[in-house]
Amino acid sequence: MMAGETRGKPIRCRAAVCRKAGEPLVMEEVMVSPPLAGEVRIRIICTSLCHSDITFWKLKDPPGCVPRILGHEAVGVVESVGENVSEVTEGDIVLPIFMPDCGECTDCRSEKSNLCSKFPFKISPWMPRYESSRFTDLKGEVLYHFLFVSTFSEYTVVDIANITKIDPNIPPNRACLFSCGVSTGVGAAWKTANVEKGSTVAIFGLGAIGLAVAEGARLCGASRIIGVDLNPDKFEIGKKFGVTDFVNSGNCGNKPVRQVIMEMTDGGADYCFECVGMASLVHEAFACCRKGWGKTIVLGVDRPGSMLSFPSFDILHSGKSLMGSLYGGVKPKSDTLILLKRYVDKELDVDKFVTHEMRFEDINKAFDLLIQGKSLRCVLWMDK
Amino acid sequence: MMAGETRGKPIRCRAAVCRKAGEPLVMEEVMVSPPLAGEVRIRIICTSLCHSDITFWKLKDPPGCVPRILGHEAVGVVESVGENVSEVTEGDIVLPIFMPDCGECTDCRSEKSNLCSKFPFKISPWMPRYESSRFTDLKGEVLYHFLFVSTFSEYTVVDIANITKIDPNIPPNRACLFSCGVSTGVGAAWKTANVEKGSTVAIFGLGAIGLAVAEGARLCGASRIIGVDLNPDKFEIGKKFGVTDFVNSGNCGNKPVRQVIMEMTDGGADYCFECVGMASLVHEAFACCRKGWGKTIVLGVDRPGSMLSFPSFDILHSGKSLMGSLYGGVKPKSDTLILLKRYVDKELDVDKFVTHEMRFEDINKAFDLLIQGKSLRCVLWMDK
Ligand SMILES: [Zn+2]
Ligand SMILES: [Zn+2]
Ligand SMILES: [Zn+2]
Ligand SMILES: [Zn+2]
Repeated sequence: MMAGETRGKPIRCRAAVCRKAGEPLVMEEVMVSPPLAGEVRIRIICTSLCHSDITFWKLKDPPGCVPRILGHEAVGVVESVGENVSEVTEGDIVLPIFMPDCGECTDCRSEKSNLCSKFPFKISPWMPRYESSRFTDLKGEVLYHFLFVSTFSEYTVVDIANITKIDPNIPPNRACLFSCGVSTGVGAAWKTANVEKGSTVAIFGLGAIGLAVAEGARLCGASRIIGVDLNPDKFEIGKKFGVTDFVNSGNCGNKPVRQVIMEMTDGGADYCFECVGMASLVHEAFACCRKGWGKTIVLGVDRPGSMLSFPSFDILHSGKSLMGSLYGGVKPKSDTLILLKRYVDKELDVDKFVTHEMRFEDINKAFDLLIQGKSLRCVLWMDK
Repeated sequence: MMAGETRGKPIRCRAAVCRKAGEPLVMEEVMVSPPLAGEVRIRIICTSLCHSDITFWKLKDPPGCVPRILGHEAVGVVESVGENVSEVTEGDIVLPIFMPDCGECTDCRSEKSNLCSKFPFKISPWMPRYESSRFTDLKGEVLYHFLFVSTFSEYTVVDIANITKIDPNIPPNRACLFSCGVSTGVGAAWKTANVEKGSTVAIFGLGAIGLAVAEGARLCGASRIIGVDLNPDKFEIGKKFGVTDFVNSGNCGNKPVRQVIMEMTDGGADYCFECVGMASLVHEAFACCRKGWGKTIVLGVDRPGSMLSFPSFDILHSGKSLMGSLYGGVKPKSDTLILLKRYVDKELDVDKFVTHEMRFEDINKAFDLLIQGKSLRCVLWMDK
């Protein structure tokens, strides 16, 4: 199709639809409405899979819902823009990012927050600005959105607050990683924890997020990066990402992990990152961080409703702090570009995250690989 | 007695002994042994009462114990020193401070911690360096120590790690406040939270510690200081300490405190300080702090064993952090002197904390006043 030919009209294209929680996605034709005011329609170039897609794919109860188009790591090209959109134009290469950045509210104008107040991040089935969907199936039934971006579709509509324009020369199968995993992990070390040069870091869970934290900690100059995982193969993988020491949490003899790390570090790690999403592991991470100044950063997404409980004396008498990190504390429209620049400058290495590439229609194979722990990131190409 | 006459010998003097939890202290004669190596014996000039004295006076179970000499806010003069003590000499004016500062361990050498590793802070019945007491009654029965300092006695023995030498020109009835309450509150704003100029602070509980936080926040340049208390009289008192707004937590109509503060502050306070010691109030404080960057600082000492519980999503998705503060994050031997200098320079006003002064033998009256909320600080003079 010629540029502009589809502008203002619905587009019929392929999407991978989650019709039933936990069952294979259905590759089908869907209709994608034109963007409303403040929105942008983009053609996805490639999309990758993240653990949160799996989490919400499995979720039978709200905020899980079907039929839904999942996906939130991607890069695309602007097909058309709605009214009042001047920030991007047709043909621009963009990242759809699940964290809104309106640029106007107190949070977006502050250096200290990446949590937009105008369009608060939430697990919603709708677009952020209007409580409605831009997707229908061929019978006219509404398909729900996911994380404001729904990238498992050849075309998607995204609010301008969720769009970051990037350098078109960056390879798409690298750029897409910055819309969630890499930014979340690297950002957690860089922005949320602000890891000090020469410090010691412990990372609980060496999946893609944990390894991205390692990469971020390495960039910040951490001198010791301890990976903790049940799978001993993760150490060899971790080394490529800067992991210097490994604790096999399934095989510490009679010692609890906290004791092993206390002994290795002479009293605890300066920063502990929980990247799995288990409340019990947050407690372990908190126990492993250095009294006096240790920071525990929670990145893992646990099931809704799970609780974190600490004896109040442990908070009061420890000098430790506890904080969460969403999208690594990275501001979607500014900090993401800084991270991309560091990739272009070859300081930040993301090539090693991409373990698999395949065609979009093979998306269920990509799900299997991630579920089985055989892939870090699988990039799905729309056009190949 | 002439200087030096008592050196090396036990001293017989008056002390206020807690013989039974929750019952009036007994003013009696006790024997105070000479200091062992690394210890200092001091003559107390004056001592003041802090809520932690009340908490441990009431406590029937461990770490409560009797017979014990309570007290941990005081100023004294060095009577004699044990072997290997060169930091102070007879006649020096000193603060006994319950937080050890050995000057040698990783923590004491670090700017980031005030939690000595060599002599960890704990609620112990003994001296920090040796598991023994320096007090006996006239029947020869051991009297337990409290917080390493036991200042409700005309003479006490304190480890050199718990001694800070101060400018002898500072009035003793002001200096004594810096050994706990003032440093804890002012330090929590200055060192633990590092309150930013122009920011908004909410303080839960306007006792002496909460008011000291207000004084600290004012010094840091906070533009809005919201006091939260059940007692409406606290607003007038609070104004003298920089409190600009007041929330009567017992009389918010149908609104929870969190909603009132959200509305007052357009989304929450930048810093929330819990100064009462109730887990439920920590949750309220956390709820009242600004998403994106809000810090909740726990100062209140709750009963041993109480738990803090948060939905993990509130930690993960809020961008908020939670931390504790012991002695305000103040380093006993260095930062305390900075605070005293700010008092001497008339930047930090502590006069207004001293609501009562009386003779040491009236200590039970001082307990009553504090328990009834009628005093902030009551200074007890040993020699008057
Ligand atoms: Zn993700
Ligand atoms: Zn915004
Ligand atoms: Zn020390
Ligand atoms: Zn105290």
